[in-house]
Amino acid sequence: MIEENDRILLCGRKREYFVTAGEGRFSTDKGILELSELVGKNAGDEIKTHLGDPFRIKIPRPTDFFSYAKRTGAPMLPKDIGLVIAYTGMNHKDRVLDAGTGSAIAAIYFGGIAESVVTWEQREEFASVCRKNINDAGLCNVEVKTGDVLEEKGVFDIVHHDLTITPEHIVHAFECLKPGGYLAAYTPFLEHTFTVIDTAEDLFTEVVCHETIGRELTRTKRGTRPSTRVCHSGYITVCRK
Amino acid sequence: MIEENDRILLCGRKREYFVTAGEGRFSTDKGILELSELVGKNAGDEIKTHLGDPFRIKIPRPTDFFSYAKRTGAPMLPKDIGLVIAYTGMNHKDRVLDAGTGSAIAAIYFGGIAESVVTWEQREEFASVCRKNINDAGLCNVEVKTGDVLEEKGVFDIVHHDLTITPEHIVHAFECLKPGGYLAAYTPFLEHTFTVIDTAEDLFTEVVCHETIGRELTRTKRGTRPSTRVCHSGYITVCRK
Amino acid sequence: MIEENDRILLCGRKREYFVTAGEGRFSTDKGILELSELVGKNAGDEIKTHLGDPFRIKIPRPTDFFSYAKRTGAPMLPKDIGLVIAYTGMNHKDRVLDAGTGSAIAAIYFGGIAESVVTWEQREEFASVCRKNINDAGLCNVEVKTGDVLEEKGVFDIVHHDLTITPEHIVHAFECLKPGGYLAAYTPFLEHTFTVIDTAEDLFTEVVCHETIGRELTRTKRGTRPSTRVCHSGYITVCRK
Amino acid sequence: MIEENDRILLCGRKREYFVTAGEGRFSTDKGILELSELVGKNAGDEIKTHLGDPFRIKIPRPTDFFSYAKRTGAPMLPKDIGLVIAYTGMNHKDRVLDAGTGSAIAAIYFGGIAESVVTWEQREEFASVCRKNINDAGLCNVEVKTGDVLEEKGVFDIVHHDLTITPEHIVHAFECLKPGGYLAAYTPFLEHTFTVIDTAEDLFTEVVCHETIGRELTRTKRGTRPSTRVCHSGYITVCRK
Repeated sequence: MIEENDRILLCGRKREYFVTAGEGRFSTDKGILELSELVGKNAGDEIKTHLGDPFRIKIPRPTDFFSYAKRTGAPMLPKDIGLVIAYTGMNHKDRVLDAGTGSAIAAIYFGGIAESVVTWEQREEFASVCRKNINDAGLCNVEVKTGDVLEEKGVFDIVHHDLTITPEHIVHAFECLKPGGYLAAYTPFLEHTFTVIDTAEDLFTEVVCHETIGRELTRTKRGTRPSTRVCHSGYITVCRK
Repeated sequence: MIEENDRILLCGRKREYFVTAGEGRFSTDKGILELSELVGKNAGDEIKTHLGDPFRIKIPRPTDFFSYAKRTGAPMLPKDIGLVIAYTGMNHKDRVLDAGTGSAIAAIYFGGIAESVVTWEQREEFASVCRKNINDAGLCNVEVKTGDVLEEKGVFDIVHHDLTITPEHIVHAFECLKPGGYLAAYTPFLEHTFTVIDTAEDLFTEVVCHETIGRELTRTKRGTRPSTRVCHSGYITVCRK
Repeated sequence: MIEENDRILLCGRKREYFVTAGEGRFSTDKGILELSELVGKNAGDEIKTHLGDPFRIKIPRPTDFFSYAKRTGAPMLPKDIGLVIAYTGMNHKDRVLDAGTGSAIAAIYFGGIAESVVTWEQREEFASVCRKNINDAGLCNVEVKTGDVLEEKGVFDIVHHDLTITPEHIVHAFECLKPGGYLAAYTPFLEHTFTVIDTAEDLFTEVVCHETIGRELTRTKRGTRPSTRVCHSGYITVCRK
Repeated sequence: MIEENDRILLCGRKREYFVTAGEGRFSTDKGILELSELVGKNAGDEIKTHLGDPFRIKIPRPTDFFSYAKRTGAPMLPKDIGLVIAYTGMNHKDRVLDAGTGSAIAAIYFGGIAESVVTWEQREEFASVCRKNINDAGLCNVEVKTGDVLEEKGVFDIVHHDLTITPEHIVHAFECLKPGGYLAAYTPFLEHTFTVIDTAEDLFTEVVCHETIGRELTRTKRGTRPSTRVCHSGYITVCRK
């Protein structure tokens, strides 16, 4: 049941709005919605604008935060977040260390899976956006710390890095990890990827660097074909302690 | 702390063994291990063979079940399981429907993330392997049902299909899903992929078909290059209700 | 030595111009050039604008026609033209049948390699652009025919199709080919690709369908990485008689 | 018309043989062939074994030399040779410099297209295999030189390198090229690719590094899908003078 301040997706025939349940009104292309009407409703229920147009309620999922959360830069793509989850086997028993938080999209995904997440963001102005996004996602198990991740002293099952990486980050990650735990380092450039591999190979028992090329298959009346756009996003190096 | 019947990874200098804590002995290339010594120990502890060679204890993760679980056929690759998790935003609030179970690798990944998983396997002899693998993974929230998934009457946040798909499976998935929920259908062949897209487009609000090409970057003394092996595994069509 | 009416590339410090040697003047960002000065010069020579700015002469190559020829639609990409050449082993002994001509980029590449090329373009207004482009490329061994390629009665070493393909095109290509000759059919959509494969497999001794994903590696001060843009262009099915 | 010593492909129902027209006999799975019978025949004609089984005559094309020529190592793949041809716009007016020759597969392709090819192979024992393969291909415009390509003093439209490359090779290639000409350097490893790009960018007007991922689409009764094997072969850096 929806409570005050919950983030909600409202889906009309053509448009979708990301709103907050509670006080206030919201103007759509089909008329005005009273946001207080959302409180007490559930996924699948409808509310109507003052013109009688219906909007169906969806409870946002991590995928929606990728689309609607406030961004501080380009976040990791879901396909790359999925690779980190899969190649580390992230699960509800895990304590996860994440840096740098960025828009907190990865932290929101991880917070929905792991027991707890500690995420470090160096820039105070970014960290406040992170906290807002994580709060919107309704996650209580994600802690945003401001500063340098190298100050972290905790013990973790998984360390995830999406920052300008140095050998110190690899050594620190190794020290933070439980035996059998994983470091997953995301690096868009080959040079940083080489830094990760070269440093990790002397420390970890297993180091594998993955690259994925993702395409969409488009199917229209003209025919079916891979979309002409493909993203190189980055390399993900997965290292096991 | 390790209990009797827990599955454990024992890591020697060059070899790794997947054993069960409790009664019995286990022969390695470095001598014999008493498996009862594992009980009460923790990740990172060591036990020694009768020849004094140490083996370090790791608690297995979903990634290890991909490597060590008994297989009934080719399981989905971790990269594809990761895509399903990411593009559906799977998290600890979710009830997941999974079919067909196969070796239960996907079900083990999902069980470590979601609130609960119901997984359907048509062949009784496969289902018993699934139950064994899921039990080894220590998961209590995954139920294996034997029979045709179309008999399932529950309500779910996510439906995942890895079977020879028909339009009926798509319609049934739609009916099982909560508003805002996702179907993710894995299909190795284009013809089945077309079936999924064509049926789903009349039902779901959003249908996107993904293909990923995964490569490893290999780095040796000779130089760095993408590995010459690449896997087409299959298409993943993600449909939102 | 450059003759009147030869097409010429003029390369300034930042800009390149595609001009015709002979009468007339040409305005650049650096002043005016007298095009009659080009006649009698050679690749590598310079001419100057009325302001004294030098432009170096290059003799255009097929790659330049891809950039500068007048287009009637999206031409085949060089990487795909290269695949056709390589998988058919196109060489100076070959008689090549090409359809549809489009902007004649493929025909210009083939004309520079083969003994002769016959290329069919259905639309008269396109055919006249083709003839102009082929003439600009200085090729005397490429004949543009207007109409339906199925009317062609000649015998060829290679047939190349880049048009909306039907089973009749495949059967006709088989009939036109010498024993040991090749059909290469370019199809952007899977449905047309299936038509090619299914029809060809009953006729030809060897049918292989290729897809290539082309990426550029970009190297800047920030680092090296694959460009984030990748093109699916189409499938090339190569069939040997 | 086939002459004595011409290389010929003989195609039976299931097998193909690469033979030399002229004296001698050749044993097949279907009986013995008299190779002198080939002289005077043409592509498409048949000869029969002593058991009466027919074999159809094909005149070998560059693609056949990729399959049947004697190899001294792994040759460049046709897709990569095609890229070199396409991105340099190789044609019958071109003088081409090629190094190292290897099995001469690239030199055979280039010789069938360009006016002339000079190809350098460092190892004398490899060079003799090259000469044999080029002779089998019936090419009179390809000269094999033994030694270090840096000794070459000629002027060329295209330089193609498939060897362990150094900055000296790039500088030398630049010096050998006509204005507007192209260097295409094939490098399997990233480190060598970086050497090419970094050296070339200070000399050439245009430097683009290409990578292609080639897949086959397989179509069987089970369905259609990309083949699960994909080759990273190497990077091709194309530099224009």
